[in-house]
Amino acid sequence: MAVVSGGEAVDYRVAGVDIEAGDRAVELIRPLVRATARPGVLGDIGGFGGFFALPGGYREPVLVAGADGVGTKLKIAFALGRHDTVGIDCVAMNVNDILTHGAEPLFFLDYLAVGRLDPGQVAEVVAGVAEGCRQAGCALLGGETAEMPGFYAPGEYDLAGFAVGVVERSRLVDGSAVRPGDVVLGLASSGLHSNGYSLARRILLGDGGREAVGEGEAIGGGDREDEGEAMGGGHREGESGGGAVAGRLASRPPELGGRTLGEVLLEPTRIYVRPVLDLLREVPVHAMAHITGGGLVGNVPRVIPPGCRVVIRRDAWAVPPIFRLLERAGPVPEEEMWRVFNMGIGFVLVLDGAHADRAEEILAAAGEQVYRIGSVEPGEGILLR
Amino acid sequence: MAVVSGGEAVDYRVAGVDIEAGDRAVELIRPLVRATARPGVLGDIGGFGGFFALPGGYREPVLVAGADGVGTKLKIAFALGRHDTVGIDCVAMNVNDILTHGAEPLFFLDYLAVGRLDPGQVAEVVAGVAEGCRQAGCALLGGETAEMPGFYAPGEYDLAGFAVGVVERSRLVDGSAVRPGDVVLGLASSGLHSNGYSLARRILLGDGGREAVGEGEAIGGGDREDEGEAMGGGHREGESGGGAVAGRLASRPPELGGRTLGEVLLEPTRIYVRPVLDLLREVPVHAMAHITGGGLVGNVPRVIPPGCRVVIRRDAWAVPPIFRLLERAGPVPEEEMWRVFNMGIGFVLVLDGAHADRAEEILAAAGEQVYRIGSVEPGEGILLR
Repeated sequence: MAVVSGGEAVDYRVAGVDIEAGDRAVELIRPLVRATARPGVLGDIGGFGGFFALPGGYREPVLVAGADGVGTKLKIAFALGRHDTVGIDCVAMNVNDILTHGAEPLFFLDYLAVGRLDPGQVAEVVAGVAEGCRQAGCALLGGETAEMPGFYAPGEYDLAGFAVGVVERSRLVDGSAVRPGDVVLGLASSGLHSNGYSLARRILLGDGGREAVGEGEAIGGGDREDEGEAMGGGHREGESGGGAVAGRLASRPPELGGRTLGEVLLEPTRIYVRPVLDLLREVPVHAMAHITGGGLVGNVPRVIPPGCRVVIRRDAWAVPPIFRLLERAGPVPEEEMWRVFNMGIGFVLVLDGAHADRAEEILAAAGEQVYRIGSVEPGEGILLR
Repeated sequence: MAVVSGGEAVDYRVAGVDIEAGDRAVELIRPLVRATARPGVLGDIGGFGGFFALPGGYREPVLVAGADGVGTKLKIAFALGRHDTVGIDCVAMNVNDILTHGAEPLFFLDYLAVGRLDPGQVAEVVAGVAEGCRQAGCALLGGETAEMPGFYAPGEYDLAGFAVGVVERSRLVDGSAVRPGDVVLGLASSGLHSNGYSLARRILLGDGGREAVGEGEAIGGGDREDEGEAMGGGHREGESGGGAVAGRLASRPPELGGRTLGEVLLEPTRIYVRPVLDLLREVPVHAMAHITGGGLVGNVPRVIPPGCRVVIRRDAWAVPPIFRLLERAGPVPEEEMWRVFNMGIGFVLVLDGAHADRAEEILAAAGEQVYRIGSVEPGEGILLR
């Protein structure tokens, strides 16, 4: 038998799992969760599952579910020591996804995995999740905070989540109604949202890829030969330690209009739920796309039927400065920029041209910056002009 | 402006995110996902969300949802290089949770975060998730595979998931029907299930806590002063590298009846869905508990109302050898053992004594090892005798 420890008694806390800290975190989280209650929520935190009574009035209710995480944007939060906004990103990534099918988000659950459970930090993260749920009008029905010693560096964590929404089957939006002649509307993003951060950090902070992580500790460096070559072999850990990254995040590049690079990179993902649900109550929409990893090029074709081609006019809106900064600083080929980043458009709607003016009015009245970015032609795929 | 890279063009792959590998993984996963289809699933993988038409026949359908991860049991899979069973654990942790409320699991979504996307490894992990869904009778409706360079050591990952079930409101099991005189049945666990692995690895492999991780790399060592002291200051990385851990996992302690320590530690969590749903069709059940972190002591009281005390007779079943091995090898105080591990009971049911014989018959016929482990008395909390 292989036994390493011996003599002294071992308990769970010694093994790196702090049950009392978990209990304290639950106490801090409880009021945050309660504040997201909405019609349908039954009971309270603490059971083995969260309960949600499906709203009445549906003839054929279809549940729409999605899972997504924040990704390496978390490293920006770690470097800035600011943990109360990434939860908004986590909710946004999920609810904007299910929204594309016309579903009203009902509830959300989060998965937060930490190296060491710091109740205050957990509460900060969950406060962001709760704020995202408030913006999306969904309940934070439950979640899991896992203390996983040996998985995450001190002070670091991973954050993912799951959203469930509902839509009447006959009103499910799946792209099948898209026709040549349809108009394509784009809603402004708030920045990078939650995609492209490995590349952005690499370019702006010397902190992406696998060589270095935010806290200046190496995890598994040197396992991809092509990396050092493509980067000219430089820019290793020495340059990308926590202090250097923090300094870069505090810088104010003139293009960013006085904001720090950190503020711009940590800006929460915009949640489009309320404006789009407002729109759907009045105007039929043929397809919607959430612009995540893959950009417009990768995401819009996912909901466009055969025989239709989406043509995007890139001069229909001004690409925000952070993207131009990334493109120049890389340098990143323009094609790659459009394949990785949202370039200023976070959500796309395709609808009959006859409804376009009214749709723009409703979305603008709900606070969205709306652009008429293109149209549908006979053909296949997507074309950026 | 802080720019580290310069001169040569940078793309997403250089920054550590391999979109083509992601596409290959999706192709490998697709048939696994399809195989879990069940009535209610609409459409196919590839949209922004998964669709599930709620089954008809419910007057007041209540959705029950849970989120959970596999935890540090993953380190055993890493050390053994075997990735096709942790997905079963992931599904089990979630579906057994929602089952405690009488809900039939409808669908599951997984969140898999990897340091570097290896399509074969991803497909192995998802194959386990799909097998778990098959055992639980639920659809794998979607999921997220996130490539997060700098978060996970090479070859390592985190795995979590999310399950949604449905139950008629009048049949929701929440413990409120529990009465003094009720009988407590316990269903045998298949081993540690997915809890207590930080402690188990520390004891059996010298690999728990924060000093060392499975692949022999240090992440953030030395940040908890109490650890080195409690362990007598020894047993650091040198002893707990990947090779040493692999050797210990290959050992066959006589108590384990010829099985290797690795086999016993990686044994998938038992999924109780089908036997318990069989039971619920015929017999009213007052409360159920899934025995996870916290053991019987921590989990059973979660579903017992005020005025009732659960009394467990510890001689009602034989605690499996792996737990005795852990207790002795720690040594771990017995009280702590019962607070961390399931001690051989993975799922608990509380019901009227008049139904106990029939319940045992049904559960045994469905393949469960059932023990009558206790009863409910007037009082509060739980007592182990």
